[in-house]
Amino acid sequence: MLNFTYHVPTRVVFGKGSLDKLGRELSCLGDSLLFVYGQGSIKKTGLYDAVHQILKKQQQVRYRELAGVQPNPRITSVRDGIALCKEHGVTGILAVGGGSVLDCAKTIATGVFYPDDPWEMFLKGDSTIQRALPVGAVMTFAGTGSEMNGNAVISNEQTSQKLAIHSDLLRPAFSLLDPTYTITVPRDQTAAGVVDIFSHILEQYFSPTQETFVQDRLAESLLNTIVHYGPVTLNEPHQYEARAQVMWTSSLALNGLLGYGKLSDWATHAIEHVLSAFYDVTHGVGLAILTPAWMQYVCEPKTRERFVTYAQNVWGITGTDADHVATQGILKTQEFFTSLGMPTRLRDIGIHNERLQEAAKSAVAFGDIGKFKKLGYRDVLTILQNAY
Amino acid sequence: MLNFTYHVPTRVVFGKGSLDKLGRELSCLGDSLLFVYGQGSIKKTGLYDAVHQILKKQQQVRYRELAGVQPNPRITSVRDGIALCKEHGVTGILAVGGGSVLDCAKTIATGVFYPDDPWEMFLKGDSTIQRALPVGAVMTFAGTGSEMNGNAVISNEQTSQKLAIHSDLLRPAFSLLDPTYTITVPRDQTAAGVVDIFSHILEQYFSPTQETFVQDRLAESLLNTIVHYGPVTLNEPHQYEARAQVMWTSSLALNGLLGYGKLSDWATHAIEHVLSAFYDVTHGVGLAILTPAWMQYVCEPKTRERFVTYAQNVWGITGTDADHVATQGILKTQEFFTSLGMPTRLRDIGIHNERLQEAAKSAVAFGDIGKFKKLGYRDVLTILQNAY
Repeated sequence: MLNFTYHVPTRVVFGKGSLDKLGRELSCLGDSLLFVYGQGSIKKTGLYDAVHQILKKQQQVRYRELAGVQPNPRITSVRDGIALCKEHGVTGILAVGGGSVLDCAKTIATGVFYPDDPWEMFLKGDSTIQRALPVGAVMTFAGTGSEMNGNAVISNEQTSQKLAIHSDLLRPAFSLLDPTYTITVPRDQTAAGVVDIFSHILEQYFSPTQETFVQDRLAESLLNTIVHYGPVTLNEPHQYEARAQVMWTSSLALNGLLGYGKLSDWATHAIEHVLSAFYDVTHGVGLAILTPAWMQYVCEPKTRERFVTYAQNVWGITGTDADHVATQGILKTQEFFTSLGMPTRLRDIGIHNERLQEAAKSAVAFGDIGKFKKLGYRDVLTILQNAY
Repeated sequence: MLNFTYHVPTRVVFGKGSLDKLGRELSCLGDSLLFVYGQGSIKKTGLYDAVHQILKKQQQVRYRELAGVQPNPRITSVRDGIALCKEHGVTGILAVGGGSVLDCAKTIATGVFYPDDPWEMFLKGDSTIQRALPVGAVMTFAGTGSEMNGNAVISNEQTSQKLAIHSDLLRPAFSLLDPTYTITVPRDQTAAGVVDIFSHILEQYFSPTQETFVQDRLAESLLNTIVHYGPVTLNEPHQYEARAQVMWTSSLALNGLLGYGKLSDWATHAIEHVLSAFYDVTHGVGLAILTPAWMQYVCEPKTRERFVTYAQNVWGITGTDADHVATQGILKTQEFFTSLGMPTRLRDIGIHNERLQEAAKSAVAFGDIGKFKKLGYRDVLTILQNAY
């Protein structure tokens, strides 16, 4: 096990009716808020009105709104939010929506203190993040895990880039997680969230660090939960328990629990971010196509043991032929994604063969990617071609 | 899943050499510290001197010492610590040692603000805890889990009681966990710690709450880790990885991760606390004897399913006869404790038959115990007699 510092100070209020606690939690955001939300689904469900009612009851609190944050949130929204914060002396940010809204809010929260344009943070790296406003979240989506972590992923349409920042300063002060809000999420987006959670776990499960027994078993327990309840959220969308299990697993999958004490891979996410930047692909859909392709590419005699353990402990595959067991595990992964309605080839989602080289180049623009197996330009291109 | 609030703000610095970070972490304790430690083992190992060196380097920090905190820490030590805090205007407490030292430090931290004698907190309940000084810890023992939670267990020799308080205010501000410090812990104490961890997980695993899939799988992953590495800490005491796995599992076992969203049992702990209070039994030793006895007593047709799942997922027992599978799981538990050198009967550790009735009465002094199965006086007495 590697040395690590564990610090997850986010206060999570979990369960049906957790919005009742919003008034109490708001105090840590100060008296001038920016209320950030997305493209209007919270208006349809009534959540927007409910939040407004609560905000109005806080007599000393003023607030402004930043609406229209898109999936694969744009740096332009971040710039708009920073301008609002500066103009109105904002002291804290309330994000209501999914991971995109929260990622945008986090980036505004630190961008307001950043001396340059906020996109520079993504280019110059996490060490340039020194300060951030407090952020609180009311989550309506299970998948990104943004509600307990210090990550934010933002797209830049001008440069066709989708990049991430990470800082403990960006962990939300509080997150209200009410699984009932995820019931109205459309089926395809629910499925994409399930794939995203599964992928977050895998990115940390496939690691070059030796002796990570407890982390491995924890990861498998979360994978097993997603295999068990992921399909239920599609087949019985109103079942509270399945929504609750998936939502809490989403948070645990990416709050650090699985990654502390080891190196994590993240190559598949790096490649997918390029596809999202180039084609505005739904993140989970890109991951569903790329993950099996990545697995097939990196599974080789040296790495096979991990794939065998994965196949045994997650998919219950038995047998003495290690190669066969490993292959079956990969196949089961692909079948699981297909069962959720995910496409299996890049060509099926409107991606053109001729831009694959450009995409591969972009994926390794900052150097080789992946820790479980290091991937350079040729590796990424082959994975993309195999997934095409 | 039940509603819950997750808030684990403790900063854990984990790994070999984590003491190097103590100077930096100390700042949150203010400029007047109480340095609490136990019966001198940290003097033998050199940790006392190392901490002193670091404290001396903090030029603005003054500190006093409270030494001699015993296993099953006494309310008398707490009173001594409170007096020192009041006399010297202490702003924060540094605990160096095992869970007993930390529990004592936590109780002092809140007791200093308590209007009555600190033992009243244990009698009047957690709602009377309103404020606490910040506490930091350097842990030398794996087992109690005190390093990430808000629990403190204190003994009162005068009244022959051992009681607990719980408050999020008592979660340490920071905990430094260096597994190398646990290498010098004597074999029998290491084993007692392993049993304590195992029991903490079981107390939360056996729950009346339905639909706790993710919590159950997480609990099994920690149980599996203890089954795998617990014996290694005894057989290869210098193996860092085993020490690290057990130490981190100890923290995760009782920081809330396994208990959020469900009810937990805690009957076995309640009974054991009486034995510790009456006979100063080592906590883990008492648990090793009582746990199989509790299992045998509460395993019945209505509760059997949970025992079957436990036997299958922790001990790999297969079969179609549910009764047989459940019984084998209980047997395996007892064998595991025996393999760690634990006694199996109360009579083997100097406990007298004639005080069992008194002990049973004391265990239910505040009402029935246990959530998985509620236990009254007669139930507890039978468990004690069966364990005798």
